[in-house]
Amino acid sequence: MTVTEEPKPRRLTPKGRATRDRIVEAATELIARNGVAGTGIEDVRAAAGVSGSQLYHYFDSKQALIRAVITRQADSVLQPGEPRVTALDSFEALRAWADAAIERQVETGCRGDCNLGSLAGELSVRDEESRSDIANGFLRWKDLVLDGLRAMRDRGELRADADLEELALSLLSALQGGVLLSQTMLQVRPLEASMNAALAYIHSFAVDAVG
Amino acid sequence: MTVTEEPKPRRLTPKGRATRDRIVEAATELIARNGVAGTGIEDVRAAAGVSGSQLYHYFDSKQALIRAVITRQADSVLQPGEPRVTALDSFEALRAWADAAIERQVETGCRGDCNLGSLAGELSVRDEESRSDIANGFLRWKDLVLDGLRAMRDRGELRADADLEELALSLLSALQGGVLLSQTMLQVRPLEASMNAALAYIHSFAVDAVG
Repeated sequence: MTVTEEPKPRRLTPKGRATRDRIVEAATELIARNGVAGTGIEDVRAAAGVSGSQLYHYFDSKQALIRAVITRQADSVLQPGEPRVTALDSFEALRAWADAAIERQVETGCRGDCNLGSLAGELSVRDEESRSDIANGFLRWKDLVLDGLRAMRDRGELRADADLEELALSLLSALQGGVLLSQTMLQVRPLEASMNAALAYIHSFAVDAVG
Repeated sequence: MTVTEEPKPRRLTPKGRATRDRIVEAATELIARNGVAGTGIEDVRAAAGVSGSQLYHYFDSKQALIRAVITRQADSVLQPGEPRVTALDSFEALRAWADAAIERQVETGCRGDCNLGSLAGELSVRDEESRSDIANGFLRWKDLVLDGLRAMRDRGELRADADLEELALSLLSALQGGVLLSQTMLQVRPLEASMNAALAYIHSFAVDAVG
């Protein structure tokens, strides 16, 4: 897979960073509501309350702005302290993580999320740079899950013959597919079902599991 | 959930139906390559080799055309005779169905699919009518899986206490999430993993399963 190098961010003053963050946050919220295609640079500028020249100082194209949104969404799920993800290194932590994802859909009425999956759905097919950025986000996410599963195996909680890569990918797929179905059907049930299935699959490799 | 009534299609002559099909097929192919936002009515007209007045005779708006694409994609997976779906009423049939979905990604290099999931990713957030149409497609699909699982339970192959609704939803979520990840990461591995997990979960409710 081609990995696109992330351009090095310029050093920003605290004030510059705050302005940049405000722009990316406004873009993320608008994309959650209207999709990438339905979000114009001018809408973002107005929502962030910045001038055109300020916006272009940080982002010289819509593509650059979208890229920052992708990075933000990829990071947000990985940030330590983010309530949704701590270390995913026990069955309890995995269940809590799944419950938090479900709770998030309940809170938003299964609407208006701007996550890597919805960005992928809209951008991957057409836009190679976005696809590659989102793929990198998924990879980092998968590695986070993999780290947790490895810790569980090393502590003797998961069987030595468990294919941890497969477990991590199936959990991530279940999350993305469950969110996609829940947001399309406006019901939280698909995500609940997919999380139950994915966690049960991981649990079937527990050393104390029967079978 | 609000169910949008599908407008009754006009009676078409065989020639009219062929023209209409050609237009929808051209639109489906263009959307697979360029997304809905990247596909214009004029592109579709040119690709289908019809005149503007012919196109407008069948579809008076882009929305009407998109709706026809959604219906076509929802139907295609349900059509009897479609190699990908026969009756999903045995473990072998479910595995064959999963393998066919995986094979399809291998054939296309994980690119350029226009399925309900990718349509949902691009359209659901912004466009209520499309969301509702796609949700109906998913529901019909889920019912197809549910019919098969019910037959398996009635034959005593699945335990009586299995939550068939949950099994069907988790299988569908795994498919959608696996395809999304595979198409974003350009690897078939995520779909393989998610299908293995979903089928293993169903299998854990087999009457002869341990546990």
